[in-house]
Amino acid sequence: MGLIGTGIGRSLSPELHEREADRHQVRCLYRLLDLGGAKRHTAENLHELLGAARSLGFAGLNVTHPVKQLVLPHLDRLAPTAARVRAVNTVVFADGAAVGHNTDGTGFAAALTRGLPDAPMRHVVQLGAGGAGSAVAHALLDLGAERVTVVDPAAGRARELAEALNTDAGSERARTCDAASLGTVLQEADGLVNASPVGTPALPRLPLDPAALHPGLWIVDINYRPLRTPLLEAGRALGCRTLHGGGMLVHQAAGTFRLVTGLEPRTAHMLADFADLTAGVREHS
Amino acid sequence: MGLIGTGIGRSLSPELHEREADRHQVRCLYRLLDLGGAKRHTAENLHELLGAARSLGFAGLNVTHPVKQLVLPHLDRLAPTAARVRAVNTVVFADGAAVGHNTDGTGFAAALTRGLPDAPMRHVVQLGAGGAGSAVAHALLDLGAERVTVVDPAAGRARELAEALNTDAGSERARTCDAASLGTVLQEADGLVNASPVGTPALPRLPLDPAALHPGLWIVDINYRPLRTPLLEAGRALGCRTLHGGGMLVHQAAGTFRLVTGLEPRTAHMLADFADLTAGVREHS
Repeated sequence: MGLIGTGIGRSLSPELHEREADRHQVRCLYRLLDLGGAKRHTAENLHELLGAARSLGFAGLNVTHPVKQLVLPHLDRLAPTAARVRAVNTVVFADGAAVGHNTDGTGFAAALTRGLPDAPMRHVVQLGAGGAGSAVAHALLDLGAERVTVVDPAAGRARELAEALNTDAGSERARTCDAASLGTVLQEADGLVNASPVGTPALPRLPLDPAALHPGLWIVDINYRPLRTPLLEAGRALGCRTLHGGGMLVHQAAGTFRLVTGLEPRTAHMLADFADLTAGVREHS
Repeated sequence: MGLIGTGIGRSLSPELHEREADRHQVRCLYRLLDLGGAKRHTAENLHELLGAARSLGFAGLNVTHPVKQLVLPHLDRLAPTAARVRAVNTVVFADGAAVGHNTDGTGFAAALTRGLPDAPMRHVVQLGAGGAGSAVAHALLDLGAERVTVVDPAAGRARELAEALNTDAGSERARTCDAASLGTVLQEADGLVNASPVGTPALPRLPLDPAALHPGLWIVDINYRPLRTPLLEAGRALGCRTLHGGGMLVHQAAGTFRLVTGLEPRTAHMLADFADLTAGVREHS
């Protein structure tokens, strides 16, 4: 198995998959294939990279930023989970075909229901409308969010996602807003989800003006490096309930493990591994 | 790790390497990349295949028939073991370079000195002048063979190997003979080595007229599938001392394991694995 993306050098996915495979006594190697690294992987040669992985005996791959949507034209089929959100985080090679799946949405949903089980869902604001964002926003609707407001610096991308969400839900539950209105919109929101990469080491800053936050918000950051992103720290300072991205990481990994190996992952063990690998930092930061 | 070649579906190399890696607590997957298989690997796309393996995190590869010599132009460097015999059975990816090595010769030598320790070496006849044959013939000279006669259906290839052997040895210890003279030449030979693929399932026949054999010959077949090739069976029927290819397989694998992992292989354990994997068939057939 492997992971294709940029800036993935410190990903915990190899450890999560290899340790779970060890428990099933399945021989597994999980390789990091960094598009931005020295090994000349680029988004342009994605097609070759996928073909090579298939030829060289990879059973499946994870893909992450910026490949979740770029990968679509290079696959033979999409499973319903990926077709619906037009984004892929898992590629399974089977019977000569490369099939795209998405375990981000179910991973996010599992993490949110476990981490913030009684979070009110009348109105959730989501930052980021990329590949992960699409899966997360669909999952929010699935979880019963009455309204989701999508914000993205690429306004067209946010509008497209809102349209896709409404088409899928059959109602006008999704909308967009611009950065200028974000403060006002957040005032009457229950929750805030950061599904953008802002806050990770590559973009170590707040994804919004912290004056827009208020103690009544729950806040989820889907990133897990660092566990305590600037956004979560700002929320904690205000007394907000917060949830880091570790749970989503583990639950999406469990979904990928199931798809690629055909085995039933033991998520509790994988959560314990995550805690072990990030020892010293509490899971619910 | 992996193996590139044709007709390799039943190779024992994956088990030998993975079991040894397990004993060293090193995570290892060894994949069969069959050029003749359904995965569209061909000798023509060898360059791409090597590049892909390097990019996708392979630490090294074995190569076998028909790639041992075809691979030469696609490597960045040759180690002395490979440069000398102009054939490669091991490719190590290190520091951005693909380096060719050869562990066939040392593997053959280790197997012969252990399996037939007092074999007289005045004159050895070798069938086959391909990639493995080149390494074996050089090893025979290293072991002290006074004379090596090389026989190959491709007479030019046999002549080239004999010339290379004589250049390397600095004397006229190697020569060739044609199939018609083989019987006469064998009458005064001490040993016979089959380094051709004749006798394997793809070519399940004797590599020479059995009337040319005599009880004074020792006979080695470097093939190990089957352990008892038609040639070894014919020799045993005459009372010849014989040695199958299992020992060479294990010792070359140990050499590859050392080069690729940097760890010292425990050859005794690998020999026991081979015996286990071919259970019911004695090692010295």
